[in-house]
Amino acid sequence: MIKFNHKVRILYRDIDYMGIVYYSRYFEYFEAARNEMLRSIDLPYTEFEKRGDAMPVVESYCKYREGARYDDVLIVSSKVTEFPHSRIKIEYTIRRQNSDIIIADGYTIHAFMNAKGRASKPPTYFLKALEKSWKDYE
Amino acid sequence: MIKFNHKVRILYRDIDYMGIVYYSRYFEYFEAARNEMLRSIDLPYTEFEKRGDAMPVVESYCKYREGARYDDVLIVSSKVTEFPHSRIKIEYTIRRQNSDIIIADGYTIHAFMNAKGRASKPPTYFLKALEKSWKDYE
Amino acid sequence: MIKFNHKVRILYRDIDYMGIVYYSRYFEYFEAARNEMLRSIDLPYTEFEKRGDAMPVVESYCKYREGARYDDVLIVSSKVTEFPHSRIKIEYTIRRQNSDIIIADGYTIHAFMNAKGRASKPPTYFLKALEKSWKDYE
Amino acid sequence: MIKFNHKVRILYRDIDYMGIVYYSRYFEYFEAARNEMLRSIDLPYTEFEKRGDAMPVVESYCKYREGARYDDVLIVSSKVTEFPHSRIKIEYTIRRQNSDIIIADGYTIHAFMNAKGRASKPPTYFLKALEKSWKDYE
Repeated sequence: MIKFNHKVRILYRDIDYMGIVYYSRYFEYFEAARNEMLRSIDLPYTEFEKRGDAMPVVESYCKYREGARYDDVLIVSSKVTEFPHSRIKIEYTIRRQNSDIIIADGYTIHAFMNAKGRASKPPTYFLKALEKSWKDYE
Repeated sequence: MIKFNHKVRILYRDIDYMGIVYYSRYFEYFEAARNEMLRSIDLPYTEFEKRGDAMPVVESYCKYREGARYDDVLIVSSKVTEFPHSRIKIEYTIRRQNSDIIIADGYTIHAFMNAKGRASKPPTYFLKALEKSWKDYE
Repeated sequence: MIKFNHKVRILYRDIDYMGIVYYSRYFEYFEAARNEMLRSIDLPYTEFEKRGDAMPVVESYCKYREGARYDDVLIVSSKVTEFPHSRIKIEYTIRRQNSDIIIADGYTIHAFMNAKGRASKPPTYFLKALEKSWKDYE
Repeated sequence: MIKFNHKVRILYRDIDYMGIVYYSRYFEYFEAARNEMLRSIDLPYTEFEKRGDAMPVVESYCKYREGARYDDVLIVSSKVTEFPHSRIKIEYTIRRQNSDIIIADGYTIHAFMNAKGRASKPPTYFLKALEKSWKDYE
């Protein structure tokens, strides 16, 4: 398993008339979180780009449990629990800082695409980076 | 069943470096589509607001099949196939104009909230509007 | 002068807690408006892209006079009043449909960039398209 | 003068097909920066909200000098150089981390609105907070 906690401050741009975060914004927080999770295993997404590879989102899901509000600080935990064979699933849980209550949770599923724009297996350098950081949590 | 087709033109604001629509933007198109679907049954969402009611999103999902590109015109079809008892599910299918290929599809699930901010049954005026426009498609 | 009116429906994604459109969103409406203005003179921006040219924004400005609200229909008028020699200025005025009250107005200034990524003069095909549609308004 | 540096990491959500940040996004970074500048003088914007006051944007401007790219870390410096009598002007300069080259700069002008929704003078608690932190820079 790899895991990372990313902090997000809620701004006016994020909230709607009900005073809570607009529902599609959570997917932007998911992106921020997975971006930093990849960096945490020494494989920033720019490495994929340099080699012409990509990891396009093929599915996304979010469950909204409580509305996050303006100026809240959210902790977006992202994790990968299954070693990827073809696609990779990243799971996210969002809590307010210093709180156990879950605001929202969800996942994204990503395919892999090589420099020719074709669907591919996960690149070897990615699997190696995952292996190096993979830990058992009990 | 109620059903509505809404047209969206893709702009630079929508696309990312890969030249395709950024994944969270589809949820904004879903909002545009359901907004117009409600108007098409003579119940614009502003009617909910006037009465203090709301229809917050509690789940959202999207499957990305093909990337939509800058200046594409997309047809976002939204539909409700099950008459709502507590929550309502709205389904969306996105195609390029004059094409049968599905770009993306997904759904949103909405709860109902009354003027006191409490979870509630679907309001009667909403059920009546649905009934009036409900049609069988074979 | 060239001129075009573009219609925009305000959604939940656009508004903030004060119930009015978030200030940066107007620049997205400006993009939508200039996109359609270019199409109206038979030169959709995709034509620039096919030739490797671009028209990057170098300055943008907006004055907010009245807040636009959820479900409002806005008319975004864009116009070019000065024939471009190096850069081009596009001006925008936003009103609610069937109203003379100005919600917001502003401008964007664009440079021209050729296929080599260098600053350039406005391309000839663009000047021709402007000339063909240029009209005097009194 | 009050002054604050805020850090922003560029994500895929921010960039467009040219690989650079979409022009309206800079105004979101401006909001993030002024939000943290207010917190730095012990007056988070939530304090305005608690009292029913608001500081709506009435003008915004940005000059784009260089394109910021995916995964760049930007330093958004915001400052107030003139003590506000009616409106307040906040200026922003954006640089890449560890670089002196200016990516973009601009300003926002804000009015003040009281709990009755009327234009007002800057509230006393705001002027006091500014005074307390006001410094001369030479």
